[in-house]
Amino acid sequence: MNSSEKIYSGKTKDLYALANGNILLVFKDDVTGADGIIDPGANTVIGQVEGKGRKSLGMTDYFFKRLHSAGVPTHLVNLDLEKGTMEVRRGEPLGKDINGAGGFEFVCRTRPWGSFIRRYQQYIRDAEQKLDYLVEITVKDDERGDPLINDDSIVTLGLLTPAHLEQAKQLTRHVCRIVEADLSEKGLTLIDMKIEIGLVDGEIVVIDEISADAMRVMDDAGKVLEHSTVYERLVG
Amino acid sequence: MNSSEKIYSGKTKDLYALANGNILLVFKDDVTGADGIIDPGANTVIGQVEGKGRKSLGMTDYFFKRLHSAGVPTHLVNLDLEKGTMEVRRGEPLGKDINGAGGFEFVCRTRPWGSFIRRYQQYIRDAEQKLDYLVEITVKDDERGDPLINDDSIVTLGLLTPAHLEQAKQLTRHVCRIVEADLSEKGLTLIDMKIEIGLVDGEIVVIDEISADAMRVMDDAGKVLEHSTVYERLVG
Repeated sequence: MNSSEKIYSGKTKDLYALANGNILLVFKDDVTGADGIIDPGANTVIGQVEGKGRKSLGMTDYFFKRLHSAGVPTHLVNLDLEKGTMEVRRGEPLGKDINGAGGFEFVCRTRPWGSFIRRYQQYIRDAEQKLDYLVEITVKDDERGDPLINDDSIVTLGLLTPAHLEQAKQLTRHVCRIVEADLSEKGLTLIDMKIEIGLVDGEIVVIDEISADAMRVMDDAGKVLEHSTVYERLVG
Repeated sequence: MNSSEKIYSGKTKDLYALANGNILLVFKDDVTGADGIIDPGANTVIGQVEGKGRKSLGMTDYFFKRLHSAGVPTHLVNLDLEKGTMEVRRGEPLGKDINGAGGFEFVCRTRPWGSFIRRYQQYIRDAEQKLDYLVEITVKDDERGDPLINDDSIVTLGLLTPAHLEQAKQLTRHVCRIVEADLSEKGLTLIDMKIEIGLVDGEIVVIDEISADAMRVMDDAGKVLEHSTVYERLVG
């Protein structure tokens, strides 16, 4: 990495610009949480867990292979599990503002859970209710608690064209179905997941990572699994 | 009102069931706010302002007449400014849950202001930016701070059909344009407003009230006006 320049240091990854124009993602062992409890949805790094970065990368390798098999494009060029790095095409993450802050997270839900229940409690008849690949889009903004943004705001603020927005939502549902089907083969149930999407070489593609951190998974007894358990069951 | 039964006591209105099947809305002088400061967006009644109920009713009378002239349907049957009451057709407020709680508020914005700026600050280039009748839908839920809900959630939770949702959003924009044009004739600028919508006799119509409380209005010097000033300028 002597010839590369560090361009960003995130909560779980560092980014380097490569001489060939691509980006190198270096996965870190940092974990986020609050009050000493690990929570991938939280915005504060509370410590490190050895091997965590490689596990995230291993999961991403696992799911990106399945996406590619299904013809779903990602930004991946190549991936080095030993080094804990991933080379990706340079692109424009959807929802990034002019200063490079922000960015959208595309959430897909198959049943009500977590913040969705907290927000819409009165409308939820029972926890077993199916949500038919419901998509929500949130803005990455630690200070404001990652606010939800609706389609009208995204288009009116000029953040996405209606066509790209529709493509991104369809891509989110497509990825969710692929991940759900794969988990199902292993006796696991996907509750919800989130991905990031970018415009790479003019195409709407999956970017960043797909790790156990970015999904809630239940076993056949209805128990929500630890991320490390999901990792063991899938990647071993 | 001897022959009528009180069916609901709200923050600013009481509701009575009339013998003819309609509902009587009785406007109250209660005002909401926090820390002693009146804020119509707040959820706690902090006191009373004499004549406030009649002013809200006067504004509603003013705007409902304009909506009716423009062919926009409302639930209004008749209105008594002296008594501070309004008789309306019985209907189903959109977004009410099975227990009668909740209900949607349809917000229409012509420029960024208030919570919209707080949520999407990083995307807003300047305060003069036009928002082209952007619609947001929120759930009336005091405890949860009236959370935003997106179209996908509304449809997936079975709260509205896609057709009714589209009609309701179009109605919201239509009402906003009518109110904006009327204010403009008086040298005033509409920033944003909110309405409630119901399904009455199988039709999507404006319900509840349209008062100064439910809109932000600027004068030609760019100053946001007190609600009582808006009332004086329009109804006198």
